[in-house]
Amino acid sequence: MSPARETIGIGMVGHAFMGAVHSHAWRSVHRFFDPPLVPRLAVLAGRDETRAHDAAAKFGWEAVETDWRKLIARDDVDLVDICTPGDSHAEIAIAALEAGKHVLCEKPLANSVAEAEAMAEAARRARDRGVRAMVAFNYRRVPALAHARNLVAGGALGEIRHVRSVYLQDWLSDPQSPMTWRLRRESAGSGALGDLGAHIVDAAQFVTGERLTGVSALTNTFVHERPSENGGTDAVTVDDTALFLARLSGGAVASFEATRFALGRKNAMRLEVNGSKASLAFDFESMNELQWYEGEGTEAGFRRILVTEPQHPYVGVWWPPGHLLGYEHTFTHEVADLLDAIGAGTDPEPGFDAGLRVQRVLHAVEESASTQSAWVAIED
Amino acid sequence: MSPARETIGIGMVGHAFMGAVHSHAWRSVHRFFDPPLVPRLAVLAGRDETRAHDAAAKFGWEAVETDWRKLIARDDVDLVDICTPGDSHAEIAIAALEAGKHVLCEKPLANSVAEAEAMAEAARRARDRGVRAMVAFNYRRVPALAHARNLVAGGALGEIRHVRSVYLQDWLSDPQSPMTWRLRRESAGSGALGDLGAHIVDAAQFVTGERLTGVSALTNTFVHERPSENGGTDAVTVDDTALFLARLSGGAVASFEATRFALGRKNAMRLEVNGSKASLAFDFESMNELQWYEGEGTEAGFRRILVTEPQHPYVGVWWPPGHLLGYEHTFTHEVADLLDAIGAGTDPEPGFDAGLRVQRVLHAVEESASTQSAWVAIED
Amino acid sequence: MSPARETIGIGMVGHAFMGAVHSHAWRSVHRFFDPPLVPRLAVLAGRDETRAHDAAAKFGWEAVETDWRKLIARDDVDLVDICTPGDSHAEIAIAALEAGKHVLCEKPLANSVAEAEAMAEAARRARDRGVRAMVAFNYRRVPALAHARNLVAGGALGEIRHVRSVYLQDWLSDPQSPMTWRLRRESAGSGALGDLGAHIVDAAQFVTGERLTGVSALTNTFVHERPSENGGTDAVTVDDTALFLARLSGGAVASFEATRFALGRKNAMRLEVNGSKASLAFDFESMNELQWYEGEGTEAGFRRILVTEPQHPYVGVWWPPGHLLGYEHTFTHEVADLLDAIGAGTDPEPGFDAGLRVQRVLHAVEESASTQSAWVAIED
Amino acid sequence: MSPARETIGIGMVGHAFMGAVHSHAWRSVHRFFDPPLVPRLAVLAGRDETRAHDAAAKFGWEAVETDWRKLIARDDVDLVDICTPGDSHAEIAIAALEAGKHVLCEKPLANSVAEAEAMAEAARRARDRGVRAMVAFNYRRVPALAHARNLVAGGALGEIRHVRSVYLQDWLSDPQSPMTWRLRRESAGSGALGDLGAHIVDAAQFVTGERLTGVSALTNTFVHERPSENGGTDAVTVDDTALFLARLSGGAVASFEATRFALGRKNAMRLEVNGSKASLAFDFESMNELQWYEGEGTEAGFRRILVTEPQHPYVGVWWPPGHLLGYEHTFTHEVADLLDAIGAGTDPEPGFDAGLRVQRVLHAVEESASTQSAWVAIED
Repeated sequence: MSPARETIGIGMVGHAFMGAVHSHAWRSVHRFFDPPLVPRLAVLAGRDETRAHDAAAKFGWEAVETDWRKLIARDDVDLVDICTPGDSHAEIAIAALEAGKHVLCEKPLANSVAEAEAMAEAARRARDRGVRAMVAFNYRRVPALAHARNLVAGGALGEIRHVRSVYLQDWLSDPQSPMTWRLRRESAGSGALGDLGAHIVDAAQFVTGERLTGVSALTNTFVHERPSENGGTDAVTVDDTALFLARLSGGAVASFEATRFALGRKNAMRLEVNGSKASLAFDFESMNELQWYEGEGTEAGFRRILVTEPQHPYVGVWWPPGHLLGYEHTFTHEVADLLDAIGAGTDPEPGFDAGLRVQRVLHAVEESASTQSAWVAIED
Repeated sequence: MSPARETIGIGMVGHAFMGAVHSHAWRSVHRFFDPPLVPRLAVLAGRDETRAHDAAAKFGWEAVETDWRKLIARDDVDLVDICTPGDSHAEIAIAALEAGKHVLCEKPLANSVAEAEAMAEAARRARDRGVRAMVAFNYRRVPALAHARNLVAGGALGEIRHVRSVYLQDWLSDPQSPMTWRLRRESAGSGALGDLGAHIVDAAQFVTGERLTGVSALTNTFVHERPSENGGTDAVTVDDTALFLARLSGGAVASFEATRFALGRKNAMRLEVNGSKASLAFDFESMNELQWYEGEGTEAGFRRILVTEPQHPYVGVWWPPGHLLGYEHTFTHEVADLLDAIGAGTDPEPGFDAGLRVQRVLHAVEESASTQSAWVAIED
Repeated sequence: MSPARETIGIGMVGHAFMGAVHSHAWRSVHRFFDPPLVPRLAVLAGRDETRAHDAAAKFGWEAVETDWRKLIARDDVDLVDICTPGDSHAEIAIAALEAGKHVLCEKPLANSVAEAEAMAEAARRARDRGVRAMVAFNYRRVPALAHARNLVAGGALGEIRHVRSVYLQDWLSDPQSPMTWRLRRESAGSGALGDLGAHIVDAAQFVTGERLTGVSALTNTFVHERPSENGGTDAVTVDDTALFLARLSGGAVASFEATRFALGRKNAMRLEVNGSKASLAFDFESMNELQWYEGEGTEAGFRRILVTEPQHPYVGVWWPPGHLLGYEHTFTHEVADLLDAIGAGTDPEPGFDAGLRVQRVLHAVEESASTQSAWVAIED
Repeated sequence: MSPARETIGIGMVGHAFMGAVHSHAWRSVHRFFDPPLVPRLAVLAGRDETRAHDAAAKFGWEAVETDWRKLIARDDVDLVDICTPGDSHAEIAIAALEAGKHVLCEKPLANSVAEAEAMAEAARRARDRGVRAMVAFNYRRVPALAHARNLVAGGALGEIRHVRSVYLQDWLSDPQSPMTWRLRRESAGSGALGDLGAHIVDAAQFVTGERLTGVSALTNTFVHERPSENGGTDAVTVDDTALFLARLSGGAVASFEATRFALGRKNAMRLEVNGSKASLAFDFESMNELQWYEGEGTEAGFRRILVTEPQHPYVGVWWPPGHLLGYEHTFTHEVADLLDAIGAGTDPEPGFDAGLRVQRVLHAVEESASTQSAWVAIED
């Protein structure tokens, strides 16, 4: 680590689950990678001052603000990391970009296409001033999925025919599981669709390098009332599950399912792609593995690649082969890539345009689901 | 085996792949089970006399006919086993039933709903005369799926929320794979849909005990021309893949996919059901296993049940635990159940009504696929 | 099937579990393979006349003898199939061979090295008169293991460094599981060692093409008294488990374990071989699969070969890819190979010499276990 | 995090692979756990000043020493973390303990029983002065293995009959892989035995709560000369693989294998335990999973427990269910436990006595291997 390396001041808005894992990434990235800028955990913003101070002490932030506008305004903040629910993304991100601060925004980008379009527009304007914006589809930074994307991009799969992807969780399976902001349309935008479906739509588009051009969908809410945080019950106003069929720009057909009711599946974010020359499959519950099939004859078979070799994406800075990485590494990889892009003066991927593209798919899913599964085309 | 046990004369129409495995079932069933009637492999019918004679000698049939009508007419034939392509099922089955012969008919029951309705009507008339009809959805006789059905029927899953089922093969993945009758609409009715989709629709309805009440679908043909059997190329006139979303009569949502282009998947007929109390999963490529999840807490996890215990359905007559059964056993189990029903004077399951129910789903899939994935309701 | 094909009269001694599966093989072999001789299920021998008659009727045998000597003496018996416990193998096999009858003998070949030597000597004498002897190590006929052997023989693994093999069952785990002949030294010779260990020793020698040159062993009996068949308890006089380390003639090191106390493992006969160029692994609980690793770089990984392709050993006569075979197929393959050898006038594999070789290993294991695990060399 | 929390100054000796992962643990532990003492990364010691400075900057250490004696002598060092090869463990650890510094020492504890005894003796003396010593068998801190230990300790397995454990790697499979200190007896003590075998011996004793009472062993060196770091070749003077059979104090039998030549196995540290009531199995290549079998009847089967629930050991401070942990978490858990013990004034586990116990097993293995696999008893 050269002493001359510059630092970059980070301001993080929100400090729940995402705040914890983002903090770890900012603290750790330069201990393994060699980013051109070393993050300083400058300011954490949270509405409740006591809780914000506790979080800052726990996670290692130097200062606290209770108003995100003040955080943006500070001179010691060069990059704003947005870890709040989706209903505040647009306002914070646009304000930050306009103030000349780089932005990392949690997914889904926004709660509506209109918000996402405004954010993408703000990002385009900011880009001209050298200000960068990234949406945190961290699953692109799973080494197995990054390697999958490289295999597809190198032509190893040939023509892509099939994509099938599910994101299965079960934490709402119990009807007595209590109400949260994730189950209210006004805060979360949608349910399993935006929370889980956004990930698999982005992952499918990322790995294949193609776009979804249309969908037919259905959504369902299995449990309509849940115990309120304050006693009594509250109405669930989002989907519990969303299923959709799709076509891809290259001619493939695809199916997607997002649910929090698949009892026994804890975090089964799965993606399978069948091409004319090879196939690949992934399951986040075994996130260090990529299933890979190519060739023919008597030794053909799906092979379990342990994506832990030094030549695999991101892996070289970590441990020897067979020593697994975990969930949080995806965030460390994400901020490493973001810092590289900022340092190089290039746009990070996925930018807000990619986030908007996912938002349009989510919107089409809801539109199809509300019109008897009628096909809804998705503009580019 | 009591010497007094009666025999039942079998006449089999068709002697390709299905004829080989049906013959094995008829030859073997009483060597393991104790059916009330012992099958005699009386007559095999095939249009080409030489090939029919060769098949009869190889498979162990006593006599040969080149016209299925003559086979039906013979006194030594009590049961007609139809192993021909779907376009001849209705004619043969109805003639046999009207002649007072029991019928076992390969799936899908027919190539159209109209044919299937006529067959179901013929079966209802025949039933009044003690004549039985069964459609050969042999996957119901996989011990793991039969056990799954028992678990659901016993209430172990609670309320069913999700069904996801795929049937993945890859033998058409190569565009140079030659034309066959299975790729012509006039002989096969449909492509992957009728061949593979029929199995998973029946399996889903069998295991859950519920019906599909509507679908939204898309189909695709990846390769439109293939090398003809006679040189040149021929047009593929069926689907290469069919994907559909569905709702079940009990409130669950479901997704289905049938394809012969999933490179690397050889016979992945898979079914997963998530209930409020338990979940199960099955893959025909590991057909002796049932994945099972129930309970909660620190020891909950999907368990791999080796469905080879003597208490499991059908298994008691075979080998010790851990000694696997294969594909052909499903047919032996099927004819064991059919002979039991005939002996007991009851209707075998699945009867032609169940076959018709599947046919209506296949029809709805095609209708939805031809109308931009619009929702198509399925009558009971 | 040419009408001119000759038949071969089979006489089977014993009609328990092994009798059932051997009968199925004799009945079925020519329905799938094209053996030069078609088996006739001529005579079944069993000491209890009623039970022998019932078994003959059930399994499809034409006649019954209560004395195996009479079975051997019959003109309609050309081949004697020995399915009795190990204590009678030597006497029956030697008598049959001396009477000019081919012999198929269940494993382990005998209960002692002395018996096995006498049998191998009798087989060598018989061979000069065109009479053939085979020991029924049926696991050599699992397509996955036959394919593994071909891969090794073709040099695909390079230098072999490691063999590890276990055969795990759990049916004696419960101390209340009753006494059987398999737990008495005088009838079974040994316990898990001869019943299960014999299989993995033969499989390891078969797949690698090498011999075990020495062993260090320990054995254990966990439950010393079990409920007798007649009330009271009886002493278990064999090992419940045997573990041994070994060296192979080519320089590899190896470990073996046989047990009936591995709770949850039903029939886990496993073999892994690591070479300098490739590795393979097998588990009989997934008997249609071979795990295979070769190559290096970013796509290397153990691949799951579904050994169900037509080019795989034995598979071509059966079903399409992905349609599994079961336990009994190994016996059908075994008798197909035996009939081919008899027809061709060559020695079948594995012959009694191979059985003797295994017997010497079993003996060395017992000797080492009784001398504080001291190394015991094994002569060729 | 209370501002009043005390800090503890860490001095780390060595800064290679182990140094990197230990540094991460010291930096991160209080960001997730609530240890009574917050580590300060005070001093890093390395012989090469430039490289030590680079490592300190990279890993986040405040100061550097080139002599470990000076590190021990510093007032700002309260705990010495020994990450050097085994030949220096005894000298450093004993000096640190005598200087009143707590010690965390990498495994294996030492290169000989004599050294280990001296270290254990030093630890006992230090304990009386409130100074703590721990040996870094980090695999005890894999949540799945910690949970396994709890299950055994709670009696869930009943009587333990079988333990089988292997630690398989393949990084030496290529004979051209170059010489390292790990292949020289004088620096490493032994080869696969001490590096990998030490882990599985400790894990087996930890999970079962029993001791190995004797072993029969063989070792082998496959490649005797390797390319030297300086050109030419050097002699490999350690084992490439060690296999041993063992008995446990509770009556179980066991087998162990450690190798770096199992081509395709990257870090397969596996442990299976079969009891009279339940069985468990673990594979470090799927380190977030525990295989668990209990019960009987038609739903019994090995279940794959994803050990990522908040109630599982160590997991509660991390991510939601199904979000995996990786290799480095085991070190974070280790130092969390060590800090807890220091804060509470109790002895951490595993202490140097546990390290000595493993050392005695390693010694017995080498003695048996050098005396024709003769049984060698192990004193307590």
